[in-house]
Amino acid sequence: MSSFDPFDFRKEAHRVADWIADYFEQVERFSVLARVAPGDIRRALPESAPENGESFDAIFRDFEHLILPGITHWNHPGFFAYFAITASAPGVLAEFLSAALNQQAMLWRTSPAATELEEVALAWLRRLIGLPDPFEGVIYDTASISTLHALAAAREAAIDGVRARGLAGRSDLRPPRVYCSEHAHSSVDKAVILLGLGHEALRRVPADSEFRMRADALAHAIDDDRRAGRQPIAVVATVGTTSTTSVDPIEAIAGVCARQRLWLHVDAAYAGVAAMVPGHEWILRGADRADSLVVNPHKWLFTPFDLSAFYCRRMDVVRQAFSLVPEYLKTTEADEVKNLMDTGIQLGRRFRALKLWIVLRHFGAGGVRAHLAEHMRLARLFASWVDASARFERVAPVPFSVVCFRLRADDDANARVLERVNASGDVFISHTKLDGRYVLRLAIGNLATTERHVARAWELLNQAAEA
Amino acid sequence: MSSFDPFDFRKEAHRVADWIADYFEQVERFSVLARVAPGDIRRALPESAPENGESFDAIFRDFEHLILPGITHWNHPGFFAYFAITASAPGVLAEFLSAALNQQAMLWRTSPAATELEEVALAWLRRLIGLPDPFEGVIYDTASISTLHALAAAREAAIDGVRARGLAGRSDLRPPRVYCSEHAHSSVDKAVILLGLGHEALRRVPADSEFRMRADALAHAIDDDRRAGRQPIAVVATVGTTSTTSVDPIEAIAGVCARQRLWLHVDAAYAGVAAMVPGHEWILRGADRADSLVVNPHKWLFTPFDLSAFYCRRMDVVRQAFSLVPEYLKTTEADEVKNLMDTGIQLGRRFRALKLWIVLRHFGAGGVRAHLAEHMRLARLFASWVDASARFERVAPVPFSVVCFRLRADDDANARVLERVNASGDVFISHTKLDGRYVLRLAIGNLATTERHVARAWELLNQAAEA
Repeated sequence: MSSFDPFDFRKEAHRVADWIADYFEQVERFSVLARVAPGDIRRALPESAPENGESFDAIFRDFEHLILPGITHWNHPGFFAYFAITASAPGVLAEFLSAALNQQAMLWRTSPAATELEEVALAWLRRLIGLPDPFEGVIYDTASISTLHALAAAREAAIDGVRARGLAGRSDLRPPRVYCSEHAHSSVDKAVILLGLGHEALRRVPADSEFRMRADALAHAIDDDRRAGRQPIAVVATVGTTSTTSVDPIEAIAGVCARQRLWLHVDAAYAGVAAMVPGHEWILRGADRADSLVVNPHKWLFTPFDLSAFYCRRMDVVRQAFSLVPEYLKTTEADEVKNLMDTGIQLGRRFRALKLWIVLRHFGAGGVRAHLAEHMRLARLFASWVDASARFERVAPVPFSVVCFRLRADDDANARVLERVNASGDVFISHTKLDGRYVLRLAIGNLATTERHVARAWELLNQAAEA
Repeated sequence: MSSFDPFDFRKEAHRVADWIADYFEQVERFSVLARVAPGDIRRALPESAPENGESFDAIFRDFEHLILPGITHWNHPGFFAYFAITASAPGVLAEFLSAALNQQAMLWRTSPAATELEEVALAWLRRLIGLPDPFEGVIYDTASISTLHALAAAREAAIDGVRARGLAGRSDLRPPRVYCSEHAHSSVDKAVILLGLGHEALRRVPADSEFRMRADALAHAIDDDRRAGRQPIAVVATVGTTSTTSVDPIEAIAGVCARQRLWLHVDAAYAGVAAMVPGHEWILRGADRADSLVVNPHKWLFTPFDLSAFYCRRMDVVRQAFSLVPEYLKTTEADEVKNLMDTGIQLGRRFRALKLWIVLRHFGAGGVRAHLAEHMRLARLFASWVDASARFERVAPVPFSVVCFRLRADDDANARVLERVNASGDVFISHTKLDGRYVLRLAIGNLATTERHVARAWELLNQAAEA
């Protein structure tokens, strides 16, 4: 390491490796939810950078004593909030390698390996979930960015000259419309805002009693809007909504989109991977007729955050929307290769494919399926306890690994149960609202989670309900 | 690691730690530019994921034999293309920790440490480059995303009701305008396209003979556009343009923006950090009057990719444009804390602050300044060789660590020199076009680069020119 400032990388890397190994072994010693108060971390740190460099000893001591107490442990098997995730051990090593190689996968030339491994790893994942060949893939950071690109492409396809002329001050444009279920993710709202379509352009379609978008209501809304002089451009269907993990009927929605010639984007960020589990292929039935689909390996495929896989049957439209090659990025091999900067708004791109490739090889398709199936078994088990309980009631079906339920009491009582359970430090659960009522959510997705952790959550919930 | 699939994390982590230590020590054994042909990597890999999990031995063997040959070595001291960057050793360890902790810094509650350390580390960097307190910071992945948020905020501030009503089908809007220099980065183009302003909304202002935006031409363009019924909304000034690292006159541009009441965004992605070097404070003079500024620690601050620091004097406008809190993300402490998801389109956010904090502590402000100054010294040295040469000529000033020059011959001859030099494997340089002519660029920014590497580049250039 002669070329860096005095720093024994080998020694410190082994120290960090041991620390992480210990952390993985002992993560249950920590409270899942950090126990600091707002401002604690900030106040413990100086206001300015040091003038002189410090030893890694000193830095690492502060990491352990000042930073670690403010960590909410997403890699803890008692993490049941939002969508539970896993930084699997091989995935973490992949990120370590990726950081050292510091690739910029913007042009083929700037990282042939990152460019081509991205194609290979995305094809592996695509086949596993049953999407056909015409879907080309690209990796973005988050589903927010994937859905943004989907709707940007839909806008490009639907609105003549939008790339050059934009949307403002044009008398030839009608107010646009994008459709999604009332249970779709807030990233759809943010995308229509960012794209200049306006938040009012988003029409949320009613769901049925099991929180699935009603295809008949969608068709009705589109007709209604056309009559009112609006221009429908896209539909976002969700496979695994955020609150209840409900599955919109893709096949029926694809039929509506085909008839109406609208871009269909499928947000399968959380649940898409479940399509590889026998008996669950149905969840993506009809998705072969979608224009684009997003699935996030960093959610339920044991890949450290961030990695969002975006698949598109019309990637040429994404390129048409965004490709722009300044002279300083022109290369002699441009005609023979893919330059991934052409399919996105971000020029710089990390070497994310490495962790997806390593994770899929480490677990194998069979291993991934087995883990997903086990998470779903644990969720059904927990749901059976809720169903058998006089104290709690289940409020939504459990198609995957998330259970929505509530204490048979008012919203405040439910909120108090949540806070009490989370204060235990053993588990962390979150909430949502359904039909106007406060609802508790238990989300299973961490690889280290076993029946013991789910049982502990149930025990804590009952204790909190009694108190 | 009992909870993961059979995998001895400790053993494999030590293996990877040693591999990376060896890599850092021996990186010069590799050709900087990968020597594979298009398709080589892809064809070496199977078409589908394995059904059964594989040993890390097998995976790592393939990483070394199949992936590594396709790596262009951004961490090689002979990397002089685009902007040279460094994944410094402490920064790489920070990423290793960050991957293991797998934080989601979307809400304070989901990572108090990541949320507050982001505030602290960004304040450290802000003070080092001399930006005043009213600039609030947030970390994004890339400058593309930072500039996108700047222009989204500018649109929000300038166009009444744009969040709700969007831009299309409104008779109250005039065609918008955004201004930047003819040498500004392509991310500005992509942002105006994405935001629905349209590519034609971007007016590129002429530069002077040293490639700096002309403030008088900017003022003239704005007046001209207002007379023509257009609505100017923002100006993007660049400190360190991509081709020549020229510095737009921020102070004069800020004056124009103040008079015209336009949002001023400063793209200091590469060169902003140089403001901390004595004698270089002038480069950000006037930036205190900007509305927003981006500087990328992953470019010239030894931080592994990705980390883009966005500073904004009107972060309330960014929040007004994007804040949107669905029920499932509501928390009881929302009034007392910052929830960083409110300042961006991406909901999920990595724990990037950790590496910035560790890098700044490891080097100290003095260490950072010394390295930047040394890179600038090396660039001036190389420029002096060019200036003294009869064969090559320099075509732009060298305010930082990038030298633009060319062989005194036609464009084809210059392109051939570039290809020949890069084929050596010892160095990698890139090109641009200035005044219509093909120009070679030598960019210094890797921590391990010494005079020996720069001399080798000069030797290879002269050999190639002779051939």
